Amino acid sequence: MKIFIVHAHPEPQSFCSAMKDTAAETFQHLGHEVQVSDLHQMKWNPVASGNDFGVRSQPDYLVYALEQRESYKSGQLSPDIQAEIEKLKWCDLLIFNFPMYWFSVPAILKGWIDRVFVSGFCYGGKRFYDQGGLKGKKGLLAFTLGGREHMFGEDKIHGEMQTMLRPLLRGSMAYVGLTVLPPFIGWHVPYISNEDRQTLLKEYREYLTNLDQLDPLSFPSLDDFDEKMMPKIQR
Amino acid sequence: MKIFIVHAHPEPQSFCSAMKDTAAETFQHLGHEVQVSDLHQMKWNPVASGNDFGVRSQPDYLVYALEQRESYKSGQLSPDIQAEIEKLKWCDLLIFNFPMYWFSVPAILKGWIDRVFVSGFCYGGKRFYDQGGLKGKKGLLAFTLGGREHMFGEDKIHGEMQTMLRPLLRGSMAYVGLTVLPPFIGWHVPYISNEDRQTLLKEYREYLTNLDQLDPLSFPSLDDFDEKMMPKIQR
Repeated sequence: MKIFIVHAHPEPQSFCSAMKDTAAETFQHLGHEVQVSDLHQMKWNPVASGNDFGVRSQPDYLVYALEQRESYKSGQLSPDIQAEIEKLKWCDLLIFNFPMYWFSVPAILKGWIDRVFVSGFCYGGKRFYDQGGLKGKKGLLAFTLGGREHMFGEDKIHGEMQTMLRPLLRGSMAYVGLTVLPPFIGWHVPYISNEDRQTLLKEYREYLTNLDQLDPLSFPSLDDFDEKMMPKIQR
Repeated sequence: MKIFIVHAHPEPQSFCSAMKDTAAETFQHLGHEVQVSDLHQMKWNPVASGNDFGVRSQPDYLVYALEQRESYKSGQLSPDIQAEIEKLKWCDLLIFNFPMYWFSVPAILKGWIDRVFVSGFCYGGKRFYDQGGLKGKKGLLAFTLGGREHMFGEDKIHGEMQTMLRPLLRGSMAYVGLTVLPPFIGWHVPYISNEDRQTLLKEYREYLTNLDQLDPLSFPSLDDFDEKMMPKIQR
């Protein structure tokens, strides 16, 4: 198996960074291949802009998704984006490894999604959800947060964690066709003892070793909906 | 009333940018004061990192929220963050104006939230949800998207829009204490005629003119939950 970890923590000594290392070591030990994009180390640019395209099909008016599609087709995407797309194509499993900021990914990782999940490859036209461009690959969120598990749930202060994660699980990963595995969550990490952190890493190793036994999350299929959802562009 | 618009579209001629201008003009016409942070124009840095703090309380190990709290207290936050905090303090109404990317804000705006909603001012300790630091102020999402309204709903392909927006509405705006108004949504914008776009701008003007008559969204109150949710930090 080929695993691509996109990692987004600013502190290399953090527990979150240790999760990234644990994942890489666990998979390599199992005989798998691993590539890591450490976004802070790479000084990844998260800002989607006209600079992402070599030649613009509309130089005087930027429609970002349209230029993505054209530039992907003509091989004119910015080299930093193209390099990430190659890793995406290569992998069987994509892992986002991050500290939860505002019930979502940090901006540096959001900007990886904005710029790398390009129209024309990952989605576009009828290419979304179970027909998405990354169909056949798996996706996994692995993240840390300050909150405790008992703060989440239907009648709890933050509501359901899976609902908070919906734009990521359903709106991003499932949208591009990934088979989405249940997230691995490092609860309450800034507040627990180092011993409990070691236990958590051990649990993560076991989780990754037994990925095949996990039931993926379930999302809608395009077959359940009709054609009128497919709009034509008007400019 | 004092209105602070945080705007995040890379194309100044876009419909989304026209929404920002429409809001500014509408409020000024009504005799209100307006400030705009145009993040692309400002070349806003969205990446939360150790560079955000003048003096670090822990120079060799970055805990971002902890350094936010210390630096906010000591006035050592990076000047670009401090300037946005002043606008936040000044305003009665905060508007995020953006094109929806991946059922969320673009990374440049996510990074505004990550860096400007600082611990120690906007949240921290028992300062969250209805006790959040921005209590008494209002918040509003105003955004455009390619999707159509009929793609959203309980049994529709993308599910409920409000659920997709939960990390923003509840997890960010309500979390820092804002009274959250119902979002204004520019549906299907890349695909509609210029005439329909003008109608949409007119609807937005009417929406903003009658903001006082809108019922805010409803979120949990801290009073409904007990003290054990308040953790002590362990390092």
